[in-house]
Parts: sequence; structure tokens; C-alpha cells
Amino acid sequence: MKSIDHIGIAVNDLNEAIEIYKNILGFNYLGKETVEEQGVRIAKFDCNGVHLEFLEPISDNSPIKKFLETKGPGIHHIAYKCDNIEQKIESLKKKGVKMINEKPKQGSNNTLIAFLHPKSSIILTELVQGG
Amino acid sequence: MKSIDHIGIAVNDLNEAIEIYKNILGFNYLGKETVEEQGVRIAKFDCNGVHLEFLEPISDNSPIKKFLETKGPGIHHIAYKCDNIEQKIESLKKKGVKMINEKPKQGSNNTLIAFLHPKSSIILTELVQGG
Repeated sequence: MKSIDHIGIAVNDLNEAIEIYKNILGFNYLGKETVEEQGVRIAKFDCNGVHLEFLEPISDNSPIKKFLETKGPGIHHIAYKCDNIEQKIESLKKKGVKMINEKPKQGSNNTLIAFLHPKSSIILTELVQGG
Repeated sequence: MKSIDHIGIAVNDLNEAIEIYKNILGFNYLGKETVEEQGVRIAKFDCNGVHLEFLEPISDNSPIKKFLETKGPGIHHIAYKCDNIEQKIESLKKKGVKMINEKPKQGSNNTLIAFLHPKSSIILTELVQGG
């Protein structure tokens, strides 16, 4: 893994997260985005090249909604940049890593993404190529 | 906040975390450390300047033990580098931020550290100067 792309943080209230991280803690606010497929609204911040992505559920079947119900607000996943995501997935699978996505899928901003199963990485882990 | 210093990850079994992150996922392993005061053993990895710190409780009153019992393995806190921690604490307090540590305390490797209360930062947040 080259470097951390972003840290995904589950929250109940995106506006509260924006108020705190933009106006009180002084992070560099990049804006909001809605990803219908994942059932989330996202507020993005930059911290020296690593993004903090606050995730608020917008549907009842959003995985973020389930996470909030069982664990409360907190860090949901870490995403790492990689150069060749297909090659990385194959190499991980050869080492016995269980993938949620065995083929990369389209992420936001022209990225390709794939999630590792938390059974294989302790915490939910995402690979990101491009963007 | 200048940049992310480290991400603290609570785990039940440090050796399992080392096996996965060193031997399977291929992160750069920096070694182990015990911090008696916090009741934890730590395994550190580097990812392009940001450290992943896996935290295993070594005593029943460790805050990591409590976290694992209520939430299970997962990300416990994010620590940010800052230049002048005393000034940063005063500036945050003026903005109404609740601090767990109102004065910096000694961390490992000659660092000064202070935790913000999660009520003020959604997730447990640490300031780190030096190291």
C-alpha cells in the first residue's frame, strides 16, 4: 500500500461534523458529495494529502446506518492508494486475503475501488486507484 | 492540525495484527513497544509517514480493554502533529473544545501529547508535538 488515501468516519449528523472539523478544529474543507449506491452523503476534508471523509447514511439499508446502530459514530474504514488495483487484488488473494470485491468497481472521481473483508484486515480496508 | 501522526487501532491479539499487516498486507513494520501507563502493548507500522499503531490491552483497567469490550476491534483514535501543543490547546479551549488533557503530558519517544474529548471531536483525537 503506497499511502493512505482517506479515512471514512461514520456520523449521524453531517452538518455537526462540518461545523466541528471546519469551523472549530480548522481542517481544510473540500465539500460535500452524495453517493447513492452506498447510501451516504459525504463531507470531505484534507489533512496534508490524507482525506477525512465523514459519512452520513441517507437510506435505511446503508452499511453506515448499520454501523452507527451497532457501534455508534466512529471510524468505519481506511482506504489506501495503490497503482495497479487488479494486480494488487490478485496478489492479496494469492496470500489468502478474503476480498469483498474480487473485481475493482467504480468509485467517485474516476477512481477504481475494492474492499478487503475485515476478517482479513481486522478493520474494513479499501484499495483506491486513481482520483 | 499539520498532518496525521498516527492512527490507533484496538486489537485483542497483537501477534495476529503483526502477522496480517507485516506478512500478508506488506506494511513496513517498525517494532513493538509497551506503554505501562496506558496499559497497552503497541505494534507500529509506517505507511508513507503516517503510522498505524495497533494497541493490545495488558491490564484490566486499560481504556483499550473497555473499548474492545463495548465496540470490538477497530480504530480507537486519530493523532495529529502540531508545532506548539500548549498554544494549540489554549486556542482550542477558547473555541469551546473540551480537552481530556488541559496540559500536555509526556508521550513515548520524547513527544508531548494531549487528548481532545470525543464530545468535541466526534472521534477520540490526540495532539502530538515532536517525536
